[in-house]
Amino acid sequence: MPNRPGRVPPATVTRLSLYARQLENLKSSQVSVISSDRLAELCHVNPAQIRKDLTYFGEFGVRGVGYYVDELLFQIHKIIGLNHPWNLALVGLGNLGTALACYSNFSLRGYRFVAAFDNDPHKIGIHLDCDLEIEPVDRLIRICREREVKIGAIATPAEKAQEVADLLTKVPIKGILNFAPTQYHVKEGVYLANVDFTGKLDELAYHLTSS
Amino acid sequence: MPNRPGRVPPATVTRLSLYARQLENLKSSQVSVISSDRLAELCHVNPAQIRKDLTYFGEFGVRGVGYYVDELLFQIHKIIGLNHPWNLALVGLGNLGTALACYSNFSLRGYRFVAAFDNDPHKIGIHLDCDLEIEPVDRLIRICREREVKIGAIATPAEKAQEVADLLTKVPIKGILNFAPTQYHVKEGVYLANVDFTGKLDELAYHLTSS
Repeated sequence: MPNRPGRVPPATVTRLSLYARQLENLKSSQVSVISSDRLAELCHVNPAQIRKDLTYFGEFGVRGVGYYVDELLFQIHKIIGLNHPWNLALVGLGNLGTALACYSNFSLRGYRFVAAFDNDPHKIGIHLDCDLEIEPVDRLIRICREREVKIGAIATPAEKAQEVADLLTKVPIKGILNFAPTQYHVKEGVYLANVDFTGKLDELAYHLTSS
Repeated sequence: MPNRPGRVPPATVTRLSLYARQLENLKSSQVSVISSDRLAELCHVNPAQIRKDLTYFGEFGVRGVGYYVDELLFQIHKIIGLNHPWNLALVGLGNLGTALACYSNFSLRGYRFVAAFDNDPHKIGIHLDCDLEIEPVDRLIRICREREVKIGAIATPAEKAQEVADLLTKVPIKGILNFAPTQYHVKEGVYLANVDFTGKLDELAYHLTSS
């Protein structure tokens, strides 16, 4: 049984997700046991890091053997919360929102969009390829409650993002994935994860400049 | 003059980008001086962290005053390499690629897509809203050389990403921004930055599960 510790470094949580991804690949390639060195290599970290990250949650792996893929994946999924599906709502159906709504990798991990909202009357009523219908933003609170949405994704223009975030927290939704190119404030107890394309480009520019 | 140190932690580079974003906002709000405490607050870090990050590159700020917004922004832009524009090429013009090609925040910071490639004959020749024309992948190497592309963005399906990465490195392009939901290998000296939507969702799921 994984523990549920009080204070886990954010970087550990990020790496757990990475370990899960590699273990999922191994499982689908029917690998049943993996050495800690090999798993570390696949994840581009060192073996001690994996052990340290897992220590927060209990004891995993067998000395001299490594990790049982199925078992470790099961435990990591449970730690992250991927042992059950998550209902998501998307707000803002421009090109980016439309791409996200139908992004197959989300659903592979149990994240499913159950609602999509926009306030453009020309978009409302459109059925997306992935079989979602675009609904008006003024029905967001009611629909999100009915469909038990736990995470909201914001892909609106920057100037609408704060308003949408406020609406989502009223549902109440406590997890927000933000794609809008802005920073905004959410109240205590609401988690906000920013997907920042430009930050990644800055990292590349820095490396290309300094190398 | 900023230094060009050998070994800067990746997290420092990530934060420099964040500082730049906040300083850009301050500049456009015509703020000319900012205290280190206030800048830290805007960036959600502590003031000591900002000082420590900047120490890698020289001395910035004035004791008892704080930072001159214009001056610090100029220096950070120079450190990251944003004192000149970057030419980018995009490969894969599905919904996501189309959204990225016209993503206005890129161009605000000097990142401009000068080429867009796809191998779908129905897409080739299409003019995007942002005035780019979709061109065939088999002309990628020649076009990228002609237009002095320095960074390639991959938004193809996962199974095409390695092939496209290999093609980009032949240009040679040394910076790759990857949106394809897969990990792959690039040769020594090529920088790869992965934009991982699912990882961010996993972080939210973890916090919602553990809170």
